[in-house]
Amino acid sequence: MRGEFEQIRKLWAPLAAAAPGAYDLRNDAAVVTPPADEELVVTLDTLIEGVHFLADDPPDLLARKALRVNLSDLAAMGAKGIGYLLSTAWSARIDDAWMESFAAGMAADQEEFAIHLLGGDTVRTPGPATFTITAVGSVPRSRALTRSGARAGDLLVVSGCIGDGALGLMSRRGELRYLSLQEQAYLEQAYRLPQPRLALGCALVELAHAALDISDGLLADVSHVAKESGLQATIRTAAVPLSAAAQSALAAEPELFETVLTGGDDYELAFALPAERAPEVEALAARLELPLTCIGHFSAGEGLHLQDRSGQPLELAGRGWVHF
Amino acid sequence: MRGEFEQIRKLWAPLAAAAPGAYDLRNDAAVVTPPADEELVVTLDTLIEGVHFLADDPPDLLARKALRVNLSDLAAMGAKGIGYLLSTAWSARIDDAWMESFAAGMAADQEEFAIHLLGGDTVRTPGPATFTITAVGSVPRSRALTRSGARAGDLLVVSGCIGDGALGLMSRRGELRYLSLQEQAYLEQAYRLPQPRLALGCALVELAHAALDISDGLLADVSHVAKESGLQATIRTAAVPLSAAAQSALAAEPELFETVLTGGDDYELAFALPAERAPEVEALAARLELPLTCIGHFSAGEGLHLQDRSGQPLELAGRGWVHF
Repeated sequence: MRGEFEQIRKLWAPLAAAAPGAYDLRNDAAVVTPPADEELVVTLDTLIEGVHFLADDPPDLLARKALRVNLSDLAAMGAKGIGYLLSTAWSARIDDAWMESFAAGMAADQEEFAIHLLGGDTVRTPGPATFTITAVGSVPRSRALTRSGARAGDLLVVSGCIGDGALGLMSRRGELRYLSLQEQAYLEQAYRLPQPRLALGCALVELAHAALDISDGLLADVSHVAKESGLQATIRTAAVPLSAAAQSALAAEPELFETVLTGGDDYELAFALPAERAPEVEALAARLELPLTCIGHFSAGEGLHLQDRSGQPLELAGRGWVHF
Repeated sequence: MRGEFEQIRKLWAPLAAAAPGAYDLRNDAAVVTPPADEELVVTLDTLIEGVHFLADDPPDLLARKALRVNLSDLAAMGAKGIGYLLSTAWSARIDDAWMESFAAGMAADQEEFAIHLLGGDTVRTPGPATFTITAVGSVPRSRALTRSGARAGDLLVVSGCIGDGALGLMSRRGELRYLSLQEQAYLEQAYRLPQPRLALGCALVELAHAALDISDGLLADVSHVAKESGLQATIRTAAVPLSAAAQSALAAEPELFETVLTGGDDYELAFALPAERAPEVEALAARLELPLTCIGHFSAGEGLHLQDRSGQPLELAGRGWVHF
C-alpha cells in the first residue's frame, strides 16, 4: 500500500463504517457514547513479534487473538464490548497481503463480538511488528467487577477448561507429539484463538463478588484475587476442570499438571461467588453452554492453599507467580 | 526494575492514584465515567524511537510530547481531558533512570492538564522503544467538533503561531545557526513541547463549525477540512501568524516559508468560524491570552487556494500533502 491514507481507506475505514462516532476514521479522535446508566471500561494490551507471537503465526489468527485478549479483560470487569482502537507498527517484512489478512481477522472477530474499529494509528517500524489494542466496553454504573471484592465464604468458580492454552503452546512447539492429531489441533486452537467470556462476565455483574480473567496462570491469578480481597484462597486441585485432550496429556506426563495450573493463556474467568447463588450459576452454565466449576473457596487468612484429592496440602515449585 | 509488578508499583501506580476508576492499576481494565450529559472521546498515537523521536531525546520531554500530541487530538474535537492509557515497550538500552525520567515527565503533564493514568501495559521489546498512548476525554453530548462541518462563508482561523514546530526541528539539526541562541531555543522548545489547545477546543464547541489540530502541516490539514466539508479553502499567506523567531528565519531564508506552511508539528488548532461570531473569538483570544488569527475563508468549490499579499494566486511545490 502506497501510504497511510490509502491503507486507512482500504483496510481500516471499512471496519469503522458501522460506528458513527468513528467518523469513517476522518477525524482526530472518536466519540463513544455509553448506553444510558452505563459507564465505560477501557483496557490496553501490546503484542510484539518474537515476544508475544511468532513471525510465522497466521496474521488473521494473530489479529483475532490480539483483540480477544483485550475483550477478555473487558469480560473480567463484567463489561460488554463496544469497540477498539488499533495501533499497527508494521515491520519491514510485512507486505500488503499480510496486512490484508490481519485486517480480515479483525473483520471476522468484529462480526463475532459485535464491536467496531473506532480509530488508531498506523506506522512503519524498523524493529519487530508491534500491535497495541485499546478495547472499549461498557458496564452498568458502579457495577464493574473487580479483583478486590471477594468475601470469606465465597466459592471460587472457573469457566471452561484450565490449561489448554499452555498445553496448546507446548503442542505448537512439537512437545506433545504423543497426543492424537485431533487432540493436538484442539489444544493449539485453544492457544491461538481463546474465547473471551463476555456473556459470562455480563451475567456475573449480578452474581459475583469479584472476578478476573486467567491470563498469568490459574494460581497466580487466584492469588491476585485473594491478595486484593485480603483473604486466603483454597483450590482443590482435583476439581480443576480439564479438557479430554489435557487429560490425555496428563495421563502420559503427570508432571504437566504444574503447567496446567501455572501456564496462563487460558482467558477463562475465575470469580468469587456467594455460596447461596450457586444454583443460579448452574442455570447460567446451562444457558451459556459453558462449564462453570467450583474449584475452591475464599476464607479469612492470606495466601493461596492447594489441596490434593484427599484434602491434604499440596506444594508446587512455584512457576507462574511472577512474569515480565 | 526487577519486573512488571515492581515497575507498576513504583512508576505507574502513583500516576493512577487519584483516578478511582483505575483501581491503583490492580484490575484488568479501568472504568471511566463521563460527566453528566457528556460522551467520551478517545484517540491513540504511537511513537517509535528512530522514527518519531531520537535516542538522545530527554525521556521526560519525550513523555510529555507523547501525551500532548494525544491531548491535541482531544482539543481538536472540543473535548477536555480525563486520562490516558499507556503502553511502554522498553528497548534493551532503557534503564531504570530512563524509565523514571519518562514517568516524571508524565507526572508533570498530568498535573498541568489535570488528567490521570488509567491503565496500560509494559513490556520489553528487542526492537526500538515504542510508546502508544490512548487519551480519553469528554465532550458535551452530540457537540464534538469534526473536520466536516465547515460552511461556505466561514472564516478560517488558527491559534498561536504557525511553523515553529518545523523550524524547531531544523534548529535541533543545527540548520538555523544564524539565529540568536534565544531564537533557536524558543523554536526547539516549540518542537519539543507543543501546547495542546484544550481550553480553546472546549470554547470552540459553542463557536466553530469545524476544527482540527495542525499536525501534518497547515496546508495539508486545511485541505482536509475543505475536502471533508465539500468546500474550497482560501489561505491568505501574508496573514499566517509567525513568531518573532520564525520571522528572523524567514528574513534570512525566505524559501523557508514553504516549511512553515507544510512542515507540521504545530499542534495549533485551525477552525471554521461563522463570520458573525468573529467578535466572540476576539474576546476568547483575550481571555485565553492566545492569538487567534483569521487567515482565510471557506467558499463553494473545492481544493485549497493560496493568495499572496496582493491577492494573487500562489503556487507551492506541494510538500507535506501526503505523509507516511
